Amino acid sequence: MKTLENDRFLRALLRQEVDRTPVWIMRQAGRYLPEYRKLRAEAGSFMDLATNPELACEVTLQPLRRFPLDAAILFSDILTIPDAMGLGLYFVTGEGPKFERPVRDAAAIAALAVPDPEERLSYVTDAVRKIRQELAGTVPLIGFSGSPWTLATYMVEGGSSRNFARTKALCYTDPRAAHELLDKLAQAVTAYLNAQIAAGAQAVQIFDSWGGALGFEAFQEFSLRYMAQIVDGLKREQDGQRVPVILFSKGCNTQLEALAATGADALGVDWTISLREARQRVGQQVALQGNLDPSVLLAPPARIRTEAERVLDSFGPGPGLVFNLGHGITPEVPPEHLGALIKHVQAYSARSTEP
Amino acid sequence: MKTLENDRFLRALLRQEVDRTPVWIMRQAGRYLPEYRKLRAEAGSFMDLATNPELACEVTLQPLRRFPLDAAILFSDILTIPDAMGLGLYFVTGEGPKFERPVRDAAAIAALAVPDPEERLSYVTDAVRKIRQELAGTVPLIGFSGSPWTLATYMVEGGSSRNFARTKALCYTDPRAAHELLDKLAQAVTAYLNAQIAAGAQAVQIFDSWGGALGFEAFQEFSLRYMAQIVDGLKREQDGQRVPVILFSKGCNTQLEALAATGADALGVDWTISLREARQRVGQQVALQGNLDPSVLLAPPARIRTEAERVLDSFGPGPGLVFNLGHGITPEVPPEHLGALIKHVQAYSARSTEP
Repeated sequence: MKTLENDRFLRALLRQEVDRTPVWIMRQAGRYLPEYRKLRAEAGSFMDLATNPELACEVTLQPLRRFPLDAAILFSDILTIPDAMGLGLYFVTGEGPKFERPVRDAAAIAALAVPDPEERLSYVTDAVRKIRQELAGTVPLIGFSGSPWTLATYMVEGGSSRNFARTKALCYTDPRAAHELLDKLAQAVTAYLNAQIAAGAQAVQIFDSWGGALGFEAFQEFSLRYMAQIVDGLKREQDGQRVPVILFSKGCNTQLEALAATGADALGVDWTISLREARQRVGQQVALQGNLDPSVLLAPPARIRTEAERVLDSFGPGPGLVFNLGHGITPEVPPEHLGALIKHVQAYSARSTEP
Repeated sequence: MKTLENDRFLRALLRQEVDRTPVWIMRQAGRYLPEYRKLRAEAGSFMDLATNPELACEVTLQPLRRFPLDAAILFSDILTIPDAMGLGLYFVTGEGPKFERPVRDAAAIAALAVPDPEERLSYVTDAVRKIRQELAGTVPLIGFSGSPWTLATYMVEGGSSRNFARTKALCYTDPRAAHELLDKLAQAVTAYLNAQIAAGAQAVQIFDSWGGALGFEAFQEFSLRYMAQIVDGLKREQDGQRVPVILFSKGCNTQLEALAATGADALGVDWTISLREARQRVGQQVALQGNLDPSVLLAPPARIRTEAERVLDSFGPGPGLVFNLGHGITPEVPPEHLGALIKHVQAYSARSTEP
């Protein structure tokens, strides 16, 4: 990739040879960093940061100034699309995101319009353009969105949920309305990710954070199908380079074969499966990304290094691995622990790939 | 089993032929039943019910008066052991269980004593004896306990948790203390389940509700190992009959082979795996119990019947299935929906086993 100084991340996603395993960290721009907490306190709310392209750019770059990460990820929220659909996103400290106007029935779903991202979400595409400019070809920028199923759970429940009872009740009692909602969301996510790609995102990830709440067949009907629709609709090229797509369905390790069959380039995996088994399940179809338990970062550096080696050894030799956590980094992690992890993954994997 | 009118449940757990698939429901004695809510309101708190053998017996029997269930399960709480260890269990409405004195360091762990169940938990064994008397040989009674790992999470966190950060930090920073805690809990659970068996429990289930929070190898180190220790230490016979042991590790579908290798008779499975794959993973080693998504019970009865058939068809022909949900029934389920489920599972599986 002629425009990038460090293209290990993109190469690994396309299962091409790399000199060492690339690494980035879900939620690498976030609350565990004191410089993030300072900027957040000055800005006001989380959404004041996310909707201001200058500040979103600054937050995106903060972890890259500290750590030799192999990719940047757009600082934003997964709920920007429902917000642009008019649901009224707000945050309550300690309770997470909420919507002022949840969507609960067929009439409310029929009334939803698919938002034009250049009109309603231009703060995101502006941030993408600004970050690309600031990155100046050092490492690639990842764009992202929530999956239709995951967005739908927040829209129907009105916020976070323990068992997603309202959303599942909608799926089982009025499947037509549920599918109309999921289809509108799939259209919206496709347009949104294509707008991020057009603005400069060099890879995109779909976060299906709550896919694991669904039963084996229900997952395929209510989540997988709509992610496949998005993968089909993405313009996966930018400046003549392939734009890889990563699907991350947390808690869905029995679905890895089905996820690989969508045509995505890579799958995120959580820490409840060994990368050895994950690789056996997907074969040569996709790359893998993961899968250290974020809680390991609370351990002393010596233990962090041992656990990182276990992840790398479990994947084994050959291309197709991006090192990451199996979920986002948590606020209580000391930043120097993350530094120790990144350094060791890079050193250990460079040794392993020596001839 | 000469003493039982209906021994389908025990036969299925031992992978013996049955005329139809037996069914019971996790949390079948609970808040979705108006008669439970009435008794609970009269008694005061949840623990006022659980610690009174007369009331615990009455609550245990309530669902059996409504539905033709193939087993009763002792009404109790999974946190009776830590309470007997002196941690001070209490409940806060909407927040779940809490401990007055959480266990956070090596000194607190060293000070813990393994409780004698006949002394500190006699309200449980008294309830078991009373329920057996009242059941009068109609269906078997299931005893249960939380797993050492699951009990440890509540003891260290002081209550419920989202990501178990304190407990995992203990495991990774002071593994010796973590193992001491888990070993004491394994001893306590073994004695507690043996006391339930001696009092009349005809099968026992270990609820490893939070096993799925652990990484692939960490699960084997911090949860599986201690469940295996318990399985080894159980007196699995009562009145000359085998007492089957069921392990239910929620969110641990990649561990089914390892769980089967503990020597347990059956494994509970959640709804994120098809019973077809679960059966392939465990072969002839164990029976399976599960795995309908509890949220399906919010659907209209026609959809409930379709989904129940899907579970039964996925397991396929041959012995070794106990029908259940993949987790406990939730308070908002209409009792008549559960009635429709049980009736259909029994009718459909009787048809399927006809020659």
